[in-house]
Amino acid sequence: MKISQIGGEFALIKKLTTKPKDEDIIKGIGDDAAIIRVGNKYLVLTTDALLEEDHFSLKYFTPQQVGKKAVEVNVSDIGAMGANPKYFLVSLVLPKNIDVEIIESIYEGIWKVSKKYTIENIGGNVTHGEQLVIDISMIGEIKNKKDLKFRSDAKTGDSILVSGDLGMSAAGLNLFLKNIEGFKEAKKKYLEPKAKFHKVKPFLKSINAMIDVSDGLASEVTRICEQSNTGAIIYADSVPIKPMTKEAAKICEEDALGFALYGGEDFELVYTVSEKNLSKVKGFLVGKITEEKGVRIYKEGKEELITKHGYNHFLKV
Amino acid sequence: MKISQIGGEFALIKKLTTKPKDEDIIKGIGDDAAIIRVGNKYLVLTTDALLEEDHFSLKYFTPQQVGKKAVEVNVSDIGAMGANPKYFLVSLVLPKNIDVEIIESIYEGIWKVSKKYTIENIGGNVTHGEQLVIDISMIGEIKNKKDLKFRSDAKTGDSILVSGDLGMSAAGLNLFLKNIEGFKEAKKKYLEPKAKFHKVKPFLKSINAMIDVSDGLASEVTRICEQSNTGAIIYADSVPIKPMTKEAAKICEEDALGFALYGGEDFELVYTVSEKNLSKVKGFLVGKITEEKGVRIYKEGKEELITKHGYNHFLKV
Repeated sequence: MKISQIGGEFALIKKLTTKPKDEDIIKGIGDDAAIIRVGNKYLVLTTDALLEEDHFSLKYFTPQQVGKKAVEVNVSDIGAMGANPKYFLVSLVLPKNIDVEIIESIYEGIWKVSKKYTIENIGGNVTHGEQLVIDISMIGEIKNKKDLKFRSDAKTGDSILVSGDLGMSAAGLNLFLKNIEGFKEAKKKYLEPKAKFHKVKPFLKSINAMIDVSDGLASEVTRICEQSNTGAIIYADSVPIKPMTKEAAKICEEDALGFALYGGEDFELVYTVSEKNLSKVKGFLVGKITEEKGVRIYKEGKEELITKHGYNHFLKV
Repeated sequence: MKISQIGGEFALIKKLTTKPKDEDIIKGIGDDAAIIRVGNKYLVLTTDALLEEDHFSLKYFTPQQVGKKAVEVNVSDIGAMGANPKYFLVSLVLPKNIDVEIIESIYEGIWKVSKKYTIENIGGNVTHGEQLVIDISMIGEIKNKKDLKFRSDAKTGDSILVSGDLGMSAAGLNLFLKNIEGFKEAKKKYLEPKAKFHKVKPFLKSINAMIDVSDGLASEVTRICEQSNTGAIIYADSVPIKPMTKEAAKICEEDALGFALYGGEDFELVYTVSEKNLSKVKGFLVGKITEEKGVRIYKEGKEELITKHGYNHFLKV
């Protein structure tokens, strides 16, 4: 059977992997990052790859923006665990005829973002292939185990919040694909995504479950619910969408809410908070965790079960 | 300029990266793996990717052998630092139409080798691309800083040793490429490379510099010399080459010594040892570290400077 027929390749990989036996593995496969204990410290580890024509196209991105994005997406994963990024390895696959200047510019982008977060490139690997791939593995550190945030800690009755507006990155991509002029801010949001974990750092202690938005709100809430053994309802009217995103959606003949729910790559944080802690956090309240399974959306007086699980790289190209 | 014109992409990447500032980074870019200090422990980190048609072809490899190889090459890098492998992340790039059974078999291979070394897969990432890529990032641990071995610690006068015979893996690849029947052992050595760090563990303390043979003896000795600011001489007649490798070379109309020097993927260890420690180590003595720069080969009464730096993935396909 072809993988494109079954979809859900994540579920397949999960099925193919075994549960950790080592007691120093605090979290194995299934969250934004893995967690291991080293002495009395906790390390958070993640890996994320960008592929040309799947995650970026040099038609739209400058090589420097590609380098920046490769680091930001990993920083976002580390931050979504409540940790601080520290070190990373870069594994490059270079097409035979790539210009040296492109590689230099990618590294300039990597440096700039490294400097911003005071993180360091400690090693890597270079090999050759048909398609440009920038695969980064990142290591973060956490001092207090209580700061660690998992997808699996949502409780029935929790409010679901997001740290900022959604859908603008997807709007940016669609504007490029449809060759539409203008909309600088939206295009920049797509080309230069930024990790947002600084937004939630002041109130990490008041958060139950957390994840970053790489595949759209609907997909991320579904992941929280699957791992927490809960359901959820999302209030369509409460999802924060900027006027420019709505305008771009209109001109692209697309749905702005669709961008927010299924668009992905906004890298805002989605987090669930108990009622008693609601006054201690910031963000946009977009839904509730429910005992009833499934993720539903409340829109125009009706509830609908969400079946399309967000942004799918198979559909993207 | 195209990267294929300048070659030496490793040197380019090194030039593009900055020196580590964090004092917990014991070793950054430039060795088999990076080393960071976490509390009073030392972690060793490496990443290595296998690409279809560059590092393996499913014409010769079973998917299970691909999975095994992906783990072994990383274990070899960790072992070459004197460390013990512990955890790893798997970043997969899957072509859209790959059979699910292939992925399952790759994971079976990953499991089998994980079990052998008691190491665990703690996470990863799946994405889609044109070419199958298995990119593994591995973390190892070292208890005693003195066990750490670098490429840069060779001293003038050191003997150069290898832990086992060389060239058989390259012979295996050539036999496949030339459609030659038989030679099971050589073909298996190519299809199922194994890390060899257990061979040097008993006498790690007596080793100065160390590296694993992934790109041929000539290339690895060159790396040691570059990092140690020395030169070396390799005695052609002392390079351990098995009769089957010689026979395979003959039938392939290739040079067995060439397989050993430039063939790669034997994953034996190359290490340098001071005279006073020579009686404490095992292995085949193949050369000497010299003050005079450059790597030379002594063959049939003559010395020649080595200019071809081993196995090149650009030339392989």
